[in-house]
Amino acid sequence: QSGTGSLENTENASGRRRVMVIGGDGYCGWATALHLSNKNYDVAIVDNLVRRLFDHQLGLDSLTPIASIHNRIRRWKALTGKTIELFIGDICDFEFLAETFKSFKPNAVVHFGEQRSAPYSMIDRSRAVFTQHNNVIGTLNVLFAIKEFGEECHLVKLGTMGEYGTPNIDIEEGYITVTHNGRTDTLPYPKQAGSFYHLSKVHDSHNIAFTCKAWGIRATDLNQGVVYGVRTDETALHEELCNRFDYDAVFGTVLNRFCVQAAVGHPLTVYGKGGQTRGYLDIRDTVQCVELAIANPAHRGEFRVFNQFTEQFSVRDLAALVTKAGEKLGLKVETISVPNPRVEAEEHYYNAKHTKLIELGLKPHFLSDSLLDSLLNFAVQYRDRVDTKQIMPSVSWKRIGVKPLTVKA
Amino acid sequence: QSGTGSLENTENASGRRRVMVIGGDGYCGWATALHLSNKNYDVAIVDNLVRRLFDHQLGLDSLTPIASIHNRIRRWKALTGKTIELFIGDICDFEFLAETFKSFKPNAVVHFGEQRSAPYSMIDRSRAVFTQHNNVIGTLNVLFAIKEFGEECHLVKLGTMGEYGTPNIDIEEGYITVTHNGRTDTLPYPKQAGSFYHLSKVHDSHNIAFTCKAWGIRATDLNQGVVYGVRTDETALHEELCNRFDYDAVFGTVLNRFCVQAAVGHPLTVYGKGGQTRGYLDIRDTVQCVELAIANPAHRGEFRVFNQFTEQFSVRDLAALVTKAGEKLGLKVETISVPNPRVEAEEHYYNAKHTKLIELGLKPHFLSDSLLDSLLNFAVQYRDRVDTKQIMPSVSWKRIGVKPLTVKA
Ligand SMILES: NC(=O)c1ccc[n+]([C@@H]2O[C@H](COP(=O)([O-])OP(=O)(O)OC[C@H]3O[C@@H](n4cnc5c(N)ncnc54)[C@H](O)[C@@H]3O)[C@@H](O)[C@H]2O)c1
Ligand SMILES: NC(=O)c1ccc[n+]([C@@H]2O[C@H](COP(=O)([O-])OP(=O)(O)OC[C@H]3O[C@@H](n4cnc5c(N)ncnc54)[C@H](O)[C@@H]3O)[C@@H](O)[C@H]2O)c1
Repeated sequence: QSGTGSLENTENASGRRRVMVIGGDGYCGWATALHLSNKNYDVAIVDNLVRRLFDHQLGLDSLTPIASIHNRIRRWKALTGKTIELFIGDICDFEFLAETFKSFKPNAVVHFGEQRSAPYSMIDRSRAVFTQHNNVIGTLNVLFAIKEFGEECHLVKLGTMGEYGTPNIDIEEGYITVTHNGRTDTLPYPKQAGSFYHLSKVHDSHNIAFTCKAWGIRATDLNQGVVYGVRTDETALHEELCNRFDYDAVFGTVLNRFCVQAAVGHPLTVYGKGGQTRGYLDIRDTVQCVELAIANPAHRGEFRVFNQFTEQFSVRDLAALVTKAGEKLGLKVETISVPNPRVEAEEHYYNAKHTKLIELGLKPHFLSDSLLDSLLNFAVQYRDRVDTKQIMPSVSWKRIGVKPLTVKA
Repeated sequence: QSGTGSLENTENASGRRRVMVIGGDGYCGWATALHLSNKNYDVAIVDNLVRRLFDHQLGLDSLTPIASIHNRIRRWKALTGKTIELFIGDICDFEFLAETFKSFKPNAVVHFGEQRSAPYSMIDRSRAVFTQHNNVIGTLNVLFAIKEFGEECHLVKLGTMGEYGTPNIDIEEGYITVTHNGRTDTLPYPKQAGSFYHLSKVHDSHNIAFTCKAWGIRATDLNQGVVYGVRTDETALHEELCNRFDYDAVFGTVLNRFCVQAAVGHPLTVYGKGGQTRGYLDIRDTVQCVELAIANPAHRGEFRVFNQFTEQFSVRDLAALVTKAGEKLGLKVETISVPNPRVEAEEHYYNAKHTKLIELGLKPHFLSDSLLDSLLNFAVQYRDRVDTKQIMPSVSWKRIGVKPLTVKA
């Protein structure tokens, strides 16, 4: 018997809507949780903190010192009077997830809670398997929890632009209308993911689409581009609210990495030819996009897909921008081409649509000189914390093996 | 360090090629293992026998009495002098799988070893999760084993026509060439699977395609239609070689089910309007197709997709054919429309290509009157073994819940 104990999809006594942020201790999730709390949503963070464990296991650390999740939430309460509820646990554990749903009764779930590094998923067999299990089963559990305990609840799920790969035609937002042998249909956009991590997101998308159709789940899949930046209005309020900033070759994303490399005088590490073009966005736009998705929920049974980025750059473009900004600050910035550890096209067509979030009201923060200046200054401020051994890529798409890899001390 | 200990992709001392049949105790796998053994391949069966466990747990049984895998293999040896090696274990257990690879050194792996029932995957949350975990992780392990221990080895993987769903355009074999905004690319055919089982196959296909590209795996994905029939030349040799024949609502496929229903005087159970159209094939063609795929391996790095079926029918068509054949045998055959337990289109366009296996030399056994007669006679022969409680569908796509379901005694 399904649907018993369904929550009503109502606001709570205070008239505020309840948003559960899964993965709320992470880079995007923490910024989003604070942003939504600030905007008067009732927020709960669900996280098993496994990302902090990965860092320990691989001997990595955030550029910025980050407070424990407990101290983060206490500090937020002290500064703003706002409470963020905390549920520590693994969403692959359905018993735990069911209890959090029954206790918090969310109107919307924002699901950031996955293993999200492509290189991590390509370290060894056990990490590849972990990534797909953690992400696919976690998301399945969230779908079952919504069906069982809150069927009006809106799922806002983080996907990635990497699901599409680099096709030789324009990338649409989730669907493409195809005319073939004289007949026409609108179909899911074909997926060509380039790592076990990206593949896990493709699997999630297919699973979610099915449950929208079969169960009437309302879902928004945010195919996010590469995020850069660190400060948001809320995380800037106090050092204990500071967000994580990954610069290492496993978890760091390219623009953040280049800024740290420039700050410590390491040559910018362009993989191969550097013609790899992707969509990018400022973390201040991540939080804005999620808020827009929540404020404008998908309909029952709708599987809505937004491409969540604001600008396209090639890796070469980014290296040039960071070089110019660095020189203005008196940094000497060099660029080297590193043998590409990934299997990917290094020169390719890329034109991805991203109008749907703009139509909902997104006001993008474009990558300007001033942002790059402040990001570089930020990296310079923390440069004593940089472990330069973490900069060069160590994970190879082709050399991945079956032996569990241990990082040397 | 990957690739150490790679097997050479050579024939064995006797000059015969070695084929590992994962899931070789199942319906398609057993018939295929015997067929390949008969054709002088060196065959090993890898199976954890979990399918026999499902039957116990759900209180189901094959229409035909089936011997244990040990007795099956002993009987084959006694009749033909041919040895089939046996490895009992779970391919989700990589330690086990690695040992079987190192011991048997296959030139080709035929991978049937998955939870393959759509209704089973829709029983409850834990079976949905089991299905995706078992199938996706099992297949990932097979890919890693091939990369590590036998990179020349050809993977022949069973997919399903159900991966494509029922698009309003022609279904191609794996890929479709799309012209969009003046540019053209050939892309993976979009997938719209209709159950957690079918979705697991979509996930597998994406994972395999990636490893072909990243690691140079050679793979053939056989998107098989619905299989019918029971006897093959080899299984007909002795009753201990008899294949399983599922007629229940969880594991039975439609034509096999209709024959048993006709044999016991149960009305044929058409789900909804009965316009659901799919590709079908005789189990004698399953074994032929697999042999053709092995004899003509994919190239290194090639992800080859064949649609493996020989004819299209709607459920209504099949009911009419079984009714006619039954009446010839003096059976009174009625048809009822059962409320559709699935979420699927009941009237739709369907035109799926299936030329690639024909080009390789497939000589189809079409569904003829004589086959239907013999299938019906077969069902009549065993009708005392039918448990009529297993005929009506009990699993609902919409009512699936989170509580583990136990079947009443
Ligand atoms: N950072 C980017 O540039 C980027 C780009 C595109 C998409 N995304 C997506 O956005 C989401 C968040 O990314 P991020 O950069 O903030 O990652 P992150 O690693 O900083 O945060 C992920 C959080 O999820 C938690 N988590 C993981 N598995 C969990 C589980 N089973 N149960 C409970 N919690 C779990 C981790 O502990 C971590 O706190 C991810 O889904 C990611 O794929 C990120
Ligand atoms: N029967 C059909 O009509 C049909 C149609 C399309 C595709 N297929 C595909 O063909 C394949 C075989 O189907 P079938 O009808 O023979 O199914 P089956 O259930 O009769 O056989 C599957 C076999 O795989 C084994 N198995 C499952 N998980 C395993 C694991 N983790 N480790 C080791 N062994 C495992 C089972 O014990 C069983 O013997 C499946 O992949 C199925 O999806 C079948």
